[in-house]
Amino acid sequence: MKLVIGDAKQFKQSIEAVVNLVDEGLFEVNENGLHLRAMDPSQIAMVDYLMPKAVFKEFEAEQATLGLNLVDFLKILGRTRSDEQLILTTEEKEAKCVLEFISPNGKRNIRLPLIDLNVSAPREPKIPFDTTIKMRGGTLKEMLKDAGLLSSHVTITADADKFIIEAKGDSGDLRIENNKNAPNLAELTSNASCRAMFPFEYLDNMTKSCPDDSIIEFQLKTNAPVKISFTVGQAKLSYYLAPRVEN
Amino acid sequence: MKLVIGDAKQFKQSIEAVVNLVDEGLFEVNENGLHLRAMDPSQIAMVDYLMPKAVFKEFEAEQATLGLNLVDFLKILGRTRSDEQLILTTEEKEAKCVLEFISPNGKRNIRLPLIDLNVSAPREPKIPFDTTIKMRGGTLKEMLKDAGLLSSHVTITADADKFIIEAKGDSGDLRIENNKNAPNLAELTSNASCRAMFPFEYLDNMTKSCPDDSIIEFQLKTNAPVKISFTVGQAKLSYYLAPRVEN
Amino acid sequence: MKLVIGDAKQFKQSIEAVVNLVDEGLFEVNENGLHLRAMDPSQIAMVDYLMPKAVFKEFEAEQATLGLNLVDFLKILGRTRSDEQLILTTEEKEAKCVLEFISPNGKRNIRLPLIDLNVSAPREPKIPFDTTIKMRGGTLKEMLKDAGLLSSHVTITADADKFIIEAKGDSGDLRIENNKNAPNLAELTSNASCRAMFPFEYLDNMTKSCPDDSIIEFQLKTNAPVKISFTVGQAKLSYYLAPRVEN
Repeated sequence: MKLVIGDAKQFKQSIEAVVNLVDEGLFEVNENGLHLRAMDPSQIAMVDYLMPKAVFKEFEAEQATLGLNLVDFLKILGRTRSDEQLILTTEEKEAKCVLEFISPNGKRNIRLPLIDLNVSAPREPKIPFDTTIKMRGGTLKEMLKDAGLLSSHVTITADADKFIIEAKGDSGDLRIENNKNAPNLAELTSNASCRAMFPFEYLDNMTKSCPDDSIIEFQLKTNAPVKISFTVGQAKLSYYLAPRVEN
Repeated sequence: MKLVIGDAKQFKQSIEAVVNLVDEGLFEVNENGLHLRAMDPSQIAMVDYLMPKAVFKEFEAEQATLGLNLVDFLKILGRTRSDEQLILTTEEKEAKCVLEFISPNGKRNIRLPLIDLNVSAPREPKIPFDTTIKMRGGTLKEMLKDAGLLSSHVTITADADKFIIEAKGDSGDLRIENNKNAPNLAELTSNASCRAMFPFEYLDNMTKSCPDDSIIEFQLKTNAPVKISFTVGQAKLSYYLAPRVEN
Repeated sequence: MKLVIGDAKQFKQSIEAVVNLVDEGLFEVNENGLHLRAMDPSQIAMVDYLMPKAVFKEFEAEQATLGLNLVDFLKILGRTRSDEQLILTTEEKEAKCVLEFISPNGKRNIRLPLIDLNVSAPREPKIPFDTTIKMRGGTLKEMLKDAGLLSSHVTITADADKFIIEAKGDSGDLRIENNKNAPNLAELTSNASCRAMFPFEYLDNMTKSCPDDSIIEFQLKTNAPVKISFTVGQAKLSYYLAPRVEN
């Protein structure tokens, strides 16, 4: 296996979006690109990551898997200097993943242990969503921060006309109403009104790697998991998060 | 009651100057504007806050009081986006204070519980001060930081010619002498020489919200409370702080 | 004794480079300037500091010594405003070192206790180094940060052709190879190949005050102490660090 990544900084940002949910994971290298799908340890959330094959400067791989401690992987990626190329290979015998950073100044090799993860990738849920909301990542993250000040849970309500975020806590209640035509909503389409409640901390972790200027998509159905999707550079990220059923 | 605040960010900064001393407080809304006067929990310091009526874009109020957890109030004000207007109203029946942030992008409602504070506003002390010192807030805050490195108490001495800040501690002693004509003193007038010692932490809390470029006023009398005054935006702030009598 | 320092901010930066290794120390004021040489508490590292006489605006001193708590000294120096001159004197009777900061705005006096340090300055080791490496401080500090992510120890290998940094730890291994002609190496001269291992934390403390754009010099010999030298402003700093002998 040999993967050549032209922009190591952007690759790092996309991996961060995975590490926000899971600490270790099994990448699959196949004809689609570099793919990972994993449940978080509490089993209420899932992340799906794909860096498409076309993004890589070189992509030589038989079917392969890479089990990695993602926290360590991210720490190393975080040490990228600007304008470095990154080559990912494996040393099968020694069970190592080799990161080689190359710049005109020289090269650095870091070898991380491949770890044995006895998990098969979870299936992607098939949910007949009723509502799709699209807006700038920065706008949504600000609304969630408001909610997080007041409660550990956030309720999202939507119909064809508006999209509402609510949070209720001991120190106060919040209600943010976004009308269909509000300039901060890129799109709101809905077949049926939806309402579901989610843990704030997960929503925060799942959205924080979305660049402020990128479009984030929420797909909703009453008391069903929410699907959250966006891109980081050229990597595609989707998350599912189970609702908390309200009393 | 309905108060419309044009610049929610500046309002937030003025409330911060109150929260530096007290965690909860009772605002009075009357013909002067929005007013609060409170002792700090240790009863050695007092803050007096007034946002004059003329500052508000709209000011509809019978005599009213608003008891609030100021820490929560400040947290919510801290979430202001730029160019937002803030409307403060009350829901008497449910004992809530409602903050409505309005911008072209939509509106956000936060309802905070009104709390029952069985306190009457303390009287403002009448002290025949001997000395008045005025200087830039930034200049004074730098001098206090010097003193705070060495001691938990700061001694201020002044007469018609000079104004001296001293601090004595185990790791060293500090003396800062400011002559009447020093370019960093905006004004020094004194009928009688004064000397008093104050806890550093209180002086620090009482001055830190003064913008660096605003004029801060100290009024002194030997072994009497100091009065510290400045404005934050258009809000008027005064503090009194009891001296610690030196041995 | 009277030492007048024109640029108190730069003086502060040079003292910081000493405090990274030792908490208290004995300065000697002699015909060379202001000099300090001290072992760190663990006795595996030494720092040698010289601010040459010519740097001072005024330098009146018989042979004198100044024993100081360097942490407190640095805290006070850290309070320098821009464009302040610093005058260092002593009050022998009261065993104080007096720092007087002078600017057009006035003056501040801080008196620090002189402390009695019953130590004689250690001798500078005489080591017949085999290899000298010079590069930008920023470049070297980045390489050390990479190593510090993976291990508490860093191995440095060098010969006439290349200079290698290695670190091995549970979460991964690092190898950075710098060829003689790499643009980030200012100089590499070597009579004999060298290899030695050092504790990361010490290397980090010894190099972190080197400005990114200054040249840092490493002198090496197999399993001998490394000598690290650079300048901070006009102060000359050298450090020695004992190797850890590899198993």
